[in-house]
Amino acid sequence: VTQRSAVAVIDAIQRRAAADPRVTGLAGGLPAEVQFPKRALAQSFLRALSQAGAPALQYGWVEGSEGLRALVARRLRARGAATRDDEVIITNGAQQAIAIALELSTQAGDHVGVDTETYPAALELMRARRRIPVAGAGKVRLIYAMPAVSNPRGLTLDAAGRRTLLARHVPIIEDDAYADLQFAGPAPRPLIADAPDRVLHVGTFSKTLSPGLRIGWLITPHRLRRRALQIKQASDLQASSLTQAILEDYLTGGGRGAHVTFDERLVVLRRFYRTRAAVLGRALHTHLPDWKFQAPEGGFAIWAEAGERGRQIDEVAFLKAAVAARVVFDPGSLFRSSSARSPLAIRLCFSTAPSAELEPAMRRLARVYRRVCR
Amino acid sequence: VTQRSAVAVIDAIQRRAAADPRVTGLAGGLPAEVQFPKRALAQSFLRALSQAGAPALQYGWVEGSEGLRALVARRLRARGAATRDDEVIITNGAQQAIAIALELSTQAGDHVGVDTETYPAALELMRARRRIPVAGAGKVRLIYAMPAVSNPRGLTLDAAGRRTLLARHVPIIEDDAYADLQFAGPAPRPLIADAPDRVLHVGTFSKTLSPGLRIGWLITPHRLRRRALQIKQASDLQASSLTQAILEDYLTGGGRGAHVTFDERLVVLRRFYRTRAAVLGRALHTHLPDWKFQAPEGGFAIWAEAGERGRQIDEVAFLKAAVAARVVFDPGSLFRSSSARSPLAIRLCFSTAPSAELEPAMRRLARVYRRVCR
Repeated sequence: VTQRSAVAVIDAIQRRAAADPRVTGLAGGLPAEVQFPKRALAQSFLRALSQAGAPALQYGWVEGSEGLRALVARRLRARGAATRDDEVIITNGAQQAIAIALELSTQAGDHVGVDTETYPAALELMRARRRIPVAGAGKVRLIYAMPAVSNPRGLTLDAAGRRTLLARHVPIIEDDAYADLQFAGPAPRPLIADAPDRVLHVGTFSKTLSPGLRIGWLITPHRLRRRALQIKQASDLQASSLTQAILEDYLTGGGRGAHVTFDERLVVLRRFYRTRAAVLGRALHTHLPDWKFQAPEGGFAIWAEAGERGRQIDEVAFLKAAVAARVVFDPGSLFRSSSARSPLAIRLCFSTAPSAELEPAMRRLARVYRRVCR
Repeated sequence: VTQRSAVAVIDAIQRRAAADPRVTGLAGGLPAEVQFPKRALAQSFLRALSQAGAPALQYGWVEGSEGLRALVARRLRARGAATRDDEVIITNGAQQAIAIALELSTQAGDHVGVDTETYPAALELMRARRRIPVAGAGKVRLIYAMPAVSNPRGLTLDAAGRRTLLARHVPIIEDDAYADLQFAGPAPRPLIADAPDRVLHVGTFSKTLSPGLRIGWLITPHRLRRRALQIKQASDLQASSLTQAILEDYLTGGGRGAHVTFDERLVVLRRFYRTRAAVLGRALHTHLPDWKFQAPEGGFAIWAEAGERGRQIDEVAFLKAAVAARVVFDPGSLFRSSSARSPLAIRLCFSTAPSAELEPAMRRLARVYRRVCR
C-alpha cells in the first residue's frame, strides 16, 4: 500500500468507528464536549448579533477583528513576548496559520525539520505542498515544533531543549496549540519572545474553547507580514466575522454573570485533563504492563509504544481488531515523518470519551493485544 | 507605482473611508445589513447549540456536514444539475472554493481566461499563485467565469454566450455567487448541468444570507474530488462547524415561526436590490449623463465608464477627491486582468448604503467629477 492509501484506510476505519456510539473514542484529539461553555457562548452570540449594523454577520478585514487581535497580543505579552496588536493575523484555526507560515518560509522540495513524532495534519500539509518533513538534526530550511506541550507526546521542552532548538538558527514555526493546557500551570514563555525575527507563532482557541469556531492566529516576523496577509486574502478573504465576534465578547467577559474568566476556565481545564490523563495512564499501566509511555505534561493524549513482543504487529490490523472490540485510537504511522508502521505505537486520547469508559476501554484493548500477539 | 502598491494605496483609502460614518459606502460588494435575518439566525444558533454533544462546537469532517451538503446539492438539482449530495465540499466562502479549484486545474505560469472585467479577489488569487489572467478568446488552461450575474457588470450570459463559453472546451470555474440574486427570478441552469466533467462549480451564502458565516461550496468533476479534499484538509481542516450548523438549521426551517423560507427570502432580496439598482441608475443618469452603464440584471453593483472628457482622469486621484466629498467606490483597475487604470471606470455598489443616500452621493460624485475634469 502507498502512504496515501494507508492514510485513507485508517480514515475509513476511524469514520465508521466515530459513527458508532458503542465505540469508545480515543482518537482524534478532540476537546471534551462537557467542557464547552455553551451558555456563555450563546450569550456572547446574542450580544454580538445585537450590535448596531451586525458586523458579526458582515464582511470584515483580512487580518481579523481589531478587538480579538488585541486580546491575542495581550495574552502573548503576558507570557514575555513583545507582540504588538497589529502583528496578529486571525486565521481559520491553527492549521491555516501553519499552512500560511509554511508557504511564507519554504518552497517545494525544501526539507522541514520535525520531531520524531508530530502533528499529523502538519505532516499531511507538508506532503500536499511537496515539502519534505525530516526528523533529526540535519540541515533544514525551517523547523516545525511544538515547544510547549507537544503532540502526540504531551511534553514541554526544558531549557536545554529550547536552547538547542534556537541554536539551529533557522526559521521556526512555533505551534502553540496546547500551551494553555500544560497541567502544571500557565503557558510558558513562547519561543517568539526570544527570536521574534525568525519565529512564526501559531495559536488557536480550538483546544481551550471550541474547534467548531475555527479561530486561530499567526504572528510572523515583520518582513513577512504583508505577504502573509496576501496569502490569507487569496485563500479565503478572512476568518468568520461571527465566530470572531463571539470569541471577542466571550474573552472580554461582556455581560458576564456567573461565568468564569477565560483564565479561570483554563485552571479548570488543566485539572480536568490532568485527572483524565492519570486515569488513562493507570489503566494503561495495569492492562498493558509491557507497553512504554511517559506521563504527559499537558494536552489530550498519551503516546504509547508496544512492548518487545508486540513491536511487529501491523497497526491497521490492530486498529481493526480494536474497533471490533469497541475502542478506536490513532495509529502511530500518522505521526511519523517516515510514515513507518512499525514498531507499533499508538496515540490514546483521554480528552473526549467519558472518564468512566477509559479503564474498560484499556481492558478491552489489552485483550485484543494479547490475541494479536499470539 | 507597481500594481501591488496601487492596490495597497486603494485599500488604505477605502479603509479610512469605511471607518468614517459620514462617507456613503458604494465600495466592497457588501450585502445590505438591514436584510440580515438576525432573529432567525439567532434561533438557529440556539437550536444548534442545544443538540446533544454540541457538534456545532466540535471538530467535523473535512468535506462539511452531511445535512448542509445535501441542502446545497438539492438546490443544484432543482436547477437541472445531477449533483449528488456527496459531491459537495463545504468551504470558507466562495473564495476558498475558487482557490482550491484553481490549484486543482492549473499550475504556476498557466494562462487563465477571464472576462474583461471580473471579480478582484479572483484576479488577486491568480497573481498570488502565479497564474496569468487573460481576457479574450486566446488559448488558456482554464476559464474563470460568472455566467449568472457577473461581477462587476451584473449581467447573465444568454444562450449564445453560454454556448460560446462551453465550446472553448477547457475546464471552467463557474462562480455562481450572485446567481440567486438575478432580479428577474430564480437562478438559471448552472453550467455544471451541461458539462459536469469539466466544470468546477463554486457557490456561497455570503450574498444571500451573511458573509460573516464564511460558508461556500465547491463541486468538482469526480476525478478531482479526492485531491480537492486533500487540499481543503491541508489548508484548514474544515469549515466552521458552528456556522454550518446555524445554516443547516436555518435552511431546513427548524422551528420556524413567523420566518420566511429561504426561497421566499430570495424573492424579497431580488425586489430589494432591483429597487436599489433602479434608484442608483436613475441618479447616475441624472448627475453623470455622459457616463456609460448598463442596467444590471442582478447582484449588488453598476459598472460605470466615464464619458469622453473623463477617460484619462486618474482613478486614484478621483477616488481621493470622492472620499473627501464623502463617497467611496471601487476603482476600475481592480477588476481588470491588465490592472489598467484607464479609461476611467468604477464599480458603484447600491447594496450597502441606505437607499436614501444613493442620489445625494451621486450628486456629490458628479460635482467632484466636474471639478477633476477641468
